[in-house]
Amino acid sequence: MSDFDAAEVLERCDALAKISAAVDGIERSYLTPEHARTNWTVGEWMADAGLTAWQDAAGNQRGTLAGPTADAPVLLLGSHLDTVPGAGRYDGVLGTLMAVAVVGRLRARGVELPFGIEVLGFADEEGTRFGRTLLGSCAVAGTWEDGWWTLQDAHGVTLHDAFLAFGLDPSRVGEASLVGRPIVGYLEAHIEQGPLLQDAKRSLGVVRGIMGARRFELEMIGEAGHAGGMPYGRRRDALLGASEVVSAVEVLARDARAVGTVGRLQAFPGAVNVIPGRVEFSLDLRAETDAVRDRVWDEIAEKGLKSAAARQLSFGVRQVHEARATQVGEQLALAVEAGIRSTGDAEPMWLLSKAGHDAMAIADLCDYAMLFIRCKDGISHHRDEAVCADDVEVALDALEATVLELAGQSS
Amino acid sequence: MSDFDAAEVLERCDALAKISAAVDGIERSYLTPEHARTNWTVGEWMADAGLTAWQDAAGNQRGTLAGPTADAPVLLLGSHLDTVPGAGRYDGVLGTLMAVAVVGRLRARGVELPFGIEVLGFADEEGTRFGRTLLGSCAVAGTWEDGWWTLQDAHGVTLHDAFLAFGLDPSRVGEASLVGRPIVGYLEAHIEQGPLLQDAKRSLGVVRGIMGARRFELEMIGEAGHAGGMPYGRRRDALLGASEVVSAVEVLARDARAVGTVGRLQAFPGAVNVIPGRVEFSLDLRAETDAVRDRVWDEIAEKGLKSAAARQLSFGVRQVHEARATQVGEQLALAVEAGIRSTGDAEPMWLLSKAGHDAMAIADLCDYAMLFIRCKDGISHHRDEAVCADDVEVALDALEATVLELAGQSS
Repeated sequence: MSDFDAAEVLERCDALAKISAAVDGIERSYLTPEHARTNWTVGEWMADAGLTAWQDAAGNQRGTLAGPTADAPVLLLGSHLDTVPGAGRYDGVLGTLMAVAVVGRLRARGVELPFGIEVLGFADEEGTRFGRTLLGSCAVAGTWEDGWWTLQDAHGVTLHDAFLAFGLDPSRVGEASLVGRPIVGYLEAHIEQGPLLQDAKRSLGVVRGIMGARRFELEMIGEAGHAGGMPYGRRRDALLGASEVVSAVEVLARDARAVGTVGRLQAFPGAVNVIPGRVEFSLDLRAETDAVRDRVWDEIAEKGLKSAAARQLSFGVRQVHEARATQVGEQLALAVEAGIRSTGDAEPMWLLSKAGHDAMAIADLCDYAMLFIRCKDGISHHRDEAVCADDVEVALDALEATVLELAGQSS
Repeated sequence: MSDFDAAEVLERCDALAKISAAVDGIERSYLTPEHARTNWTVGEWMADAGLTAWQDAAGNQRGTLAGPTADAPVLLLGSHLDTVPGAGRYDGVLGTLMAVAVVGRLRARGVELPFGIEVLGFADEEGTRFGRTLLGSCAVAGTWEDGWWTLQDAHGVTLHDAFLAFGLDPSRVGEASLVGRPIVGYLEAHIEQGPLLQDAKRSLGVVRGIMGARRFELEMIGEAGHAGGMPYGRRRDALLGASEVVSAVEVLARDARAVGTVGRLQAFPGAVNVIPGRVEFSLDLRAETDAVRDRVWDEIAEKGLKSAAARQLSFGVRQVHEARATQVGEQLALAVEAGIRSTGDAEPMWLLSKAGHDAMAIADLCDYAMLFIRCKDGISHHRDEAVCADDVEVALDALEATVLELAGQSS
């Protein structure tokens, strides 16, 4: 019998950290052997907690606890199981395993709930493989788009073919959707991925909303040439143009109190003695309001065109992701606040999520709320990502109390 | 029977352009299947020109024409057969095939020479695969270094293991060396890879020397982190530091009338929503004198350290190549000038090579001289690299006349 305590949850985070495509570091992307093995492992833990475990038509790992009646509404709990390359072990995973543990606790105590519960281990939040985030939660929210099937990974494999290779039937992805089902709401626990809770010396926080984000694939195209023979006046060096954009992103985003990051950048053909004829790079842009974010993007795009014109380059732009800023459901968030309060924090801190979460996609399906857990030095998407066991213990209590608070409201 | 004219040489350049590791574009690097197939093909053409064709212990394709006596000196003619990725079809290849054609012409005319000839098709001038240029010509010059065996390609294959996989015995690489043999000198024909001959409306030019070059593998190391959650004040974004260096290379090199190029740059881990924790990039630096080149490098290194300090990054530097500026052998270069003059150009143009050549390595073995051929718009290391047939015809005449000029001086 499991303990459903912080020690067990953290042990399971350690166990999942060993399922990786990389020898040195954690990397689990969508529709890979690591994804399958993770689902299988988490499915065992779900079953152990009393959940009926199954993999849905989009590859999400789900666990169902029946409600008191066939038409009872369902409370959704969860987070994601995929990771960025070189990830930490808590981003997404901690929230999913906490949801499993909370169900285990409630079952162990014989609590009768007025609703069913579904735990969701989303299969693709990060969007690392196909460049489009939240694929797993969009399938559940019923917002999957047919245009995504032709998205390709770095090896040219389409999302469609990756589905087939994973054993999934693309034509049945709609079966993952919960549209039309009566739903209480969606609760997600997650590490903060920022330093605000640590700075405030608090274990937990209530999320008040999630920043909107836009992501772009950018390209500078010039002309390759010999690094020695071609004089400066005739060069069309794509990397010089791209570097100016990288520097401008920092200045323009900072000035507007937004956040812009160029995470990927590669020069082609990529030989030491060849002038780069093409550079591919990404941009991730976030701000507290969609208006600020969009204004900063306009400024960055203008700078890109200007640098390109001055160097006889062409500047290509393709938006690959756009998520509006979302607000939490008030009643759900107040239940999270009450849950935290029950652990002894009289005035829980409310904070804005700068990171994106599955909750953004689920917002199209139902109300959501989130519980943030302090993470060390705000480090995330990095092997040094860390939480402390005491915080996880309090977070489990708070999440359990939140579910009970909602149960009290429903019954 | 072959024609040994420009049309045939250009047809052969087209034929070799089809031997490529890439479907779309030319790419032939050291110790690959494309290298083997190229050697085999060129060997057939060498035999057809009357040369004894063989592959040496370093993978260079060589063709020998015996001298009048066993102890007669040998005149070396040649260039290289490897390419950068996305290459043109004339860089190196044209000079090698011109050398074969000139031997064929002399043989067809029954000319008796006071020396033997060895045509050299060097196997690795560009250094694309192992990051170290001139491997083929260093083997011939007897300057191969034991430290190179552990150089690795992008897939982690060492030079040592690549030798074995190609069917070469690393312990016998010394057998490729010509040290101790009596040598007349080394003549290399090559496209200019710059626009000066075109600007001067000339077909051919005499090289007066080759710029010195230094190449570096550079690295900025910061810390990966979440692109949303991590505030600007706490970021250690390696790409922002590297981009500052890229921009500084252009400014500092231009100001000193040197040439600096960052040809490779890649950010890691390379996900759209992760702050780059590490950037790897290359630097190729050239100038007319070694003193200017070294001063510009000192300025770039200072800028790198400064950017790194301001952003709490560390800046790593590894020099992977250094070639001193070299001067041509005067007697040989005057023979090239006489060869060009015999084609009707009364005052041949002398010019400095900004590009590196096998001749730089062979300079450690014997005197060298080079004949430059006009290339369209100065474009090289690019699919648009082009020469005109009339220029190649004149160049064949000039190279043949140069050999005859040297024969006249020797006999």
